[in-house]
Formats: sequence, structure tokens, C-alpha cells
Amino acid sequence: MPPSSESNFADRLSEVIARTGTPACVGLDPVIEKFPGAIAQSDTSDADKLKEFCRGTLDAIAGVVPAVKFQSACFERHGAPGVAALGDLIADAGSRGLLVLLDSKRGDIGITAEHYAHAAFAHGADAVTVSGYLGPDSVEPFLKPGRGVFVLVRTSNPGSDAVQSQRLADGRTVAEMMADHVAALGRTRVGSCGLSDVGAVVGATKAADGCALRARMPQQFFLVPGYGAQGGTLDYVRALLRPGARHAPAGGVLVTASRSVIYAFERDERDWVAGVGRAVGAFAAELRSLFP
Amino acid sequence: MPPSSESNFADRLSEVIARTGTPACVGLDPVIEKFPGAIAQSDTSDADKLKEFCRGTLDAIAGVVPAVKFQSACFERHGAPGVAALGDLIADAGSRGLLVLLDSKRGDIGITAEHYAHAAFAHGADAVTVSGYLGPDSVEPFLKPGRGVFVLVRTSNPGSDAVQSQRLADGRTVAEMMADHVAALGRTRVGSCGLSDVGAVVGATKAADGCALRARMPQQFFLVPGYGAQGGTLDYVRALLRPGARHAPAGGVLVTASRSVIYAFERDERDWVAGVGRAVGAFAAELRSLFP
Repeated sequence: MPPSSESNFADRLSEVIARTGTPACVGLDPVIEKFPGAIAQSDTSDADKLKEFCRGTLDAIAGVVPAVKFQSACFERHGAPGVAALGDLIADAGSRGLLVLLDSKRGDIGITAEHYAHAAFAHGADAVTVSGYLGPDSVEPFLKPGRGVFVLVRTSNPGSDAVQSQRLADGRTVAEMMADHVAALGRTRVGSCGLSDVGAVVGATKAADGCALRARMPQQFFLVPGYGAQGGTLDYVRALLRPGARHAPAGGVLVTASRSVIYAFERDERDWVAGVGRAVGAFAAELRSLFP
Repeated sequence: MPPSSESNFADRLSEVIARTGTPACVGLDPVIEKFPGAIAQSDTSDADKLKEFCRGTLDAIAGVVPAVKFQSACFERHGAPGVAALGDLIADAGSRGLLVLLDSKRGDIGITAEHYAHAAFAHGADAVTVSGYLGPDSVEPFLKPGRGVFVLVRTSNPGSDAVQSQRLADGRTVAEMMADHVAALGRTRVGSCGLSDVGAVVGATKAADGCALRARMPQQFFLVPGYGAQGGTLDYVRALLRPGARHAPAGGVLVTASRSVIYAFERDERDWVAGVGRAVGAFAAELRSLFP
């Protein structure tokens, strides 16, 4: 029986990680040009193509990984029909027992943030990514019972250092300052698993940086994007684990791979879903090996 | 004749400010509960209510102010039909000669930012608000010919100080560090008006902070939210003007008021558009008085 949507998000995430035995999350960043030829060239709308491709991918990954992360931008670029497709797919993923993260990186103040939270959660997402640049009070409207947030702390794009690695007068980097806000926001929202509904996005970066962020955020789930195609490795993930964690849920990470899994086929391959299935199996097993 | 959408955004904004003689911008943050009773209680869909209310508001403000700012969250909370309504209204506002800002505060890396830029500009927005926490390379995908961006630098919500006022080791605040990135990004995108396509969001804050940000961003248009209902005043705006500016376009500000204009009626008032018309006239005149 799936955990109730009213229970703590971190507990639900821990349960599905325990059930699948791996902290692997598939990132659904669908781009029509990369779809199997039979879908990309079919005589249907772009929104229908998104749905057909994503449903095939959900077929391949359900039961293998604990969660799926939808990249909102890939749907928004197709306008209202794309947004409608996203809503349908979130419901579909949830009904298959996958926890659903909506990667939309919203950030605004007060009532506006409330509108964004409503938009995300009314469509069935279990958690969202948010930006904290506007301060902790811009994150609070997203803290709803049973739902999770992942606040942007550290990203791995080339330009991120120009902001996130800047050193404050008190010795912390900007990312570490954001980490402290995340830890404080999450302190009263810790589940029986020992982890909080308030998590952090921590991209692939230097191991020393990762360790420093883990020390500041011991109770946070880290959403770690960019495994595989974007260069993240197992060694890098290891530096982000909670010290002493022996089981996947206790590790406190949720690692996403996107392109290396969802496009694991030749464009003219008929049984492309099987290709995605093999790739997600390998990805899940690789991360499972962190907890021998 | 309206300026070509291919010309520099800052030049187009300067032209419409010169034409209307005021740097006033109306913020469209529509919330159905606040609509005139005849619309709120009508037997139509939420999306149709949004469209009817916003079209009435556009009737009242077109020709009086240079620009309108749509709050994306207020449409997204109504799902795909809300997003479709937003697209229709952006086109409608543009056809009335208003410059259209889409306040969606997106921020992501590389190809994902490209998708967001496509989503915003394909629907006809002239400019968008973006978050710069992920670094300057996350803003670059939004820099399209003829389009503008306003990067979040300083906001006025209570929690903003906890991030934006933090002092770096080099003496700058986090907001000032972001301001330097904005100035650098905008340097090669300056129009014949002397201002750049890359602007900044600078909310109502202490006058000294505002002056410091202006000194760092002499070529930026400042998008200044929160005039009126949120406590912004004329004195506060004065501190943000470019030194020595004698005419509205040279001032380098675009000041938005939302609630105090768009809800300037009694809920059972039949001619509510006239009420909005009086409020926008007063708002436009008040800001015009900065340039006597």
C-alpha cells in the first residue's frame, strides 16, 4: 500500500527508496527531436508526442526507481497543451507508485509563492524545486503538509561559482549561507526517518564542497542532478552521503539521471522502451552499489 | 507606429515611456475573489473570468501607461486553461501598444533556460523577470534580440535581507554582487537611449541601498515593484533614478503598481473599468511628477 499523501514527505521518500533499494531518480526532460522516430514523426500534436514518450518511459522505470523528476520547462515551451500534458503525466506517474518531483525552480514572495505552490501541488506533485534568493520567507509558502521542497543551494554549471562560491565576510560561501537557511527551515519538519521535508539541490561539484554542505545540512535530502550525461560520478555522490549511512534511505540523497536513461535507444529502434528499461536498471544498480 | 520588435528592447521601452510621459507600469496579478461581482459570480470558467477582467483592465490602461506586467503565478494556478488565457492576454496587450513584461522569475541552466525563454517569448512577451542565483550563464539564454530581461537583485520582502544583505568578504552585499553581474551582462546590449536590454528588479528598500545599487548599475532599467499597496513611495523611487535625469525615459525606472490600480472599484460597481481608469490616471500622473 502506498504511503498516505498526508504523511511526512521525507518518510514517504525514505519508504520508496527502501522498497526499490536505490536512491536513483529519473529526470524526464523530454525534447521531441530526441524521441524515437515513430513518435517524433507521427501525425499527432506535440503534446500528444510528449505524453506518448513519457508514458513509455514511465512504463520502463516504474518499480525500478523510487521517483521521477519532471522538468517543467520542457512542457511549458509547448504552451498550454504542454502544461496540460504535464498535469496528466504527473497523475499517471503517481498512480504507478512513483514519487513525483516537479523541477520548476520557482521563487517569489508571499501570495505569489502561494499561487505557485498551488499550481504545483494541485496537479499532484509530491515535491518541487524552489529558488531561495528572495529569502527564507519566499520558501515558506511551499511548505505544505505531506509535500516536499528542494531549495537550490549549489549547482554545477560553469557560471555558478560567480554567485554560489563567493565568500562572505563570516567565512561561509553564499551556497553555505543558503544551506544554513535550508537547515533552519527544515528543522521542525523532520520525519520519523530522521530526514526533513525541506531538502536541497546540490549539483555535482568538488568533493570538499559537497562534504562542507553535508556537514551544514545533516537532516536534508540532497537532490543531485546531472548524473551520467552531465558528468556526475559515483565517487562524487559518495561525498554527499550522510556519514555512516548503511542503507539507501539513510544516505539522504536522491540522484537524478536524465539523458543517459531516457534516450537510451537508437532513434529507429522499435522496442525503445526496452532500451530505457535496460538503462534505468543499470543506473539503479550503480547507485545501489553505494550501500553494499 | 510602434517600434519594431527587432529593435533594442531598452530603446522600445524608452520610446513608450516618452510617448506616455510616465514610467508607470500596471501589474496584472488577477485573483478571482477580488474581481467585480458580476465577473466573479458569472457562470463561466475561471480562465474566461481571468480574460474578461484583464481585458477590462487593459481597456482602462492602454495609452495611459507604457507597459503592463503579467504575474505568471496568478495564471499558472488555474492550470493549462490559465496558461492559455495568459498567452491570449499577452497578445491582446501587445496589440494595444503596451510593452509586455512577463513576471515569472524563472532561473535554470543551459538548455532548460532556453526552453523557458522560448516559452516566454514565443507567447509574445517583450521582457521577462529571471533569477540569477545559478550564475550569469543562467541568464544568457534569455538574452534574445529585441527582448529584455530583469534580473532579481533586491526585493523588499521581510526575509530578503537574510540573503541579499549579507556582506561579502570584499565589502559588497550579495545584492551588490548580483548588481555587478547584471551590469556586466548588460554592457554589450546598450541601445541608443543609453540604457541596456538587461535590467534589474529592485524593490522598495532603504534609499541608501537604492543609491548604492544605482551607482553599480548606471545603464540598467530598474523594474520597481510594490508601489502603492505594498508601501513604495515617490521619495523612494527618486533615490533609484539615474542622476541628473530630466525626462521620464532617462530616469531608468519602470515602477509597477498592482492592487492599488487594478482593484480600484467597489465589488458591486457596474462601471468598474472607469474606476481602474481613474486610478491608473492618478498613478501615471504621480510618477510623471518626478520629472517636472
